[in-house]
Amino acid sequence: MLFITLEGIDGSGKTTIAKLLREKLRSEGYNVVLTREPGGDEIAEQIREIILSKKNEKMDPWTEALLYIAARCQHVSQDILPALKEGAIVICDRFMDSTSAYQGYARGLGIRTLDEIQSMVLGTTKPDLTLFFDIEPKVALNRMQERSEDEMNRLDLEKSTFHEKVYEGYQVLISEHSERIKVIDADKTINEVLEQVYYYVYNAIDKIKAQKNG
Amino acid sequence: MLFITLEGIDGSGKTTIAKLLREKLRSEGYNVVLTREPGGDEIAEQIREIILSKKNEKMDPWTEALLYIAARCQHVSQDILPALKEGAIVICDRFMDSTSAYQGYARGLGIRTLDEIQSMVLGTTKPDLTLFFDIEPKVALNRMQERSEDEMNRLDLEKSTFHEKVYEGYQVLISEHSERIKVIDADKTINEVLEQVYYYVYNAIDKIKAQKNG
Repeated sequence: MLFITLEGIDGSGKTTIAKLLREKLRSEGYNVVLTREPGGDEIAEQIREIILSKKNEKMDPWTEALLYIAARCQHVSQDILPALKEGAIVICDRFMDSTSAYQGYARGLGIRTLDEIQSMVLGTTKPDLTLFFDIEPKVALNRMQERSEDEMNRLDLEKSTFHEKVYEGYQVLISEHSERIKVIDADKTINEVLEQVYYYVYNAIDKIKAQKNG
Repeated sequence: MLFITLEGIDGSGKTTIAKLLREKLRSEGYNVVLTREPGGDEIAEQIREIILSKKNEKMDPWTEALLYIAARCQHVSQDILPALKEGAIVICDRFMDSTSAYQGYARGLGIRTLDEIQSMVLGTTKPDLTLFFDIEPKVALNRMQERSEDEMNRLDLEKSTFHEKVYEGYQVLISEHSERIKVIDADKTINEVLEQVYYYVYNAIDKIKAQKNG
């Protein structure tokens, strides 16, 4: 029925919100499937094992990006598409924009190239609505540190630069897909964030209902 | 130095010719690397295991196509590109056009889509010259049957239809890349086929030498 994806850098709070959104929609009688990437069936799992295996350090960056997209196609055909056909609202925590922002922009393969390839491959199974959880990379990093109670070290600083690049990548995607990607101010209380999320989600639901009735 | 790919349906004789071409060029002092697809390093091998495993029968067609291309990127970065940088002539038995013709056209994913995606992904490491070994699908099938000494059965007939589709796919690619893809009449004696192959290969070598000297 409706395919919603949640995007943002780590620490933006989207995973917490995803669960609350699922509960809210379920309480109103909607059939809701919450899934996440990386996710999917056994085949997707085998693909991920290749990506993550430490012995595969000589992996070409394009090989890595294509393996991510291959696993995504499997996730779509086995989980997401069947749920949509059954009339569910599917909420997916990370999807195509993550690959465009992380591999395409931050790793330098070309954000438009990855965006375009995924559009071609996914065809009509693209998200109806994407919520970008907007938070300053430094604020997100602080949140993560509170979570793990670690001190700032060299690796964290590297992470910080990388997160900033990913954040920049998302800005490019937002400017090119302003119809699909909506920006949520994630540096607020949970209730304030939820309010913004509900606004876009119910708008999308209303639109689909109107299309059906029209 | 020069990247040559050989394409055609099974039974077109390209593998036999590949070896003879390698020997000829080597006898003239060229550094020649003959490789084939599917091929490549351990990572490419792991990817192929997923594609070929019988337990993975629920594989989405796009997942399969992207896994082939992912393995190809690994083959390029680990074998083909280093050999070209060392000044070798690289001959590859099957390459990107096989995926466009087989998965793109015969399996119905879209030949132009797969052609375009591979052009984007492979960037500048595309073949300088592609030789298409042109033979009627029925003639090729007869050759294969002589090889295996089998009788015509239902499966062979299915194969025949599939081979004809693949052959049609190659015709689309030839018409769209006439600068790169040259057609070899493969329904001839080995010497007559070789003569045609040498014509295009030496032309390509001369062109590269002229570019270097100019």
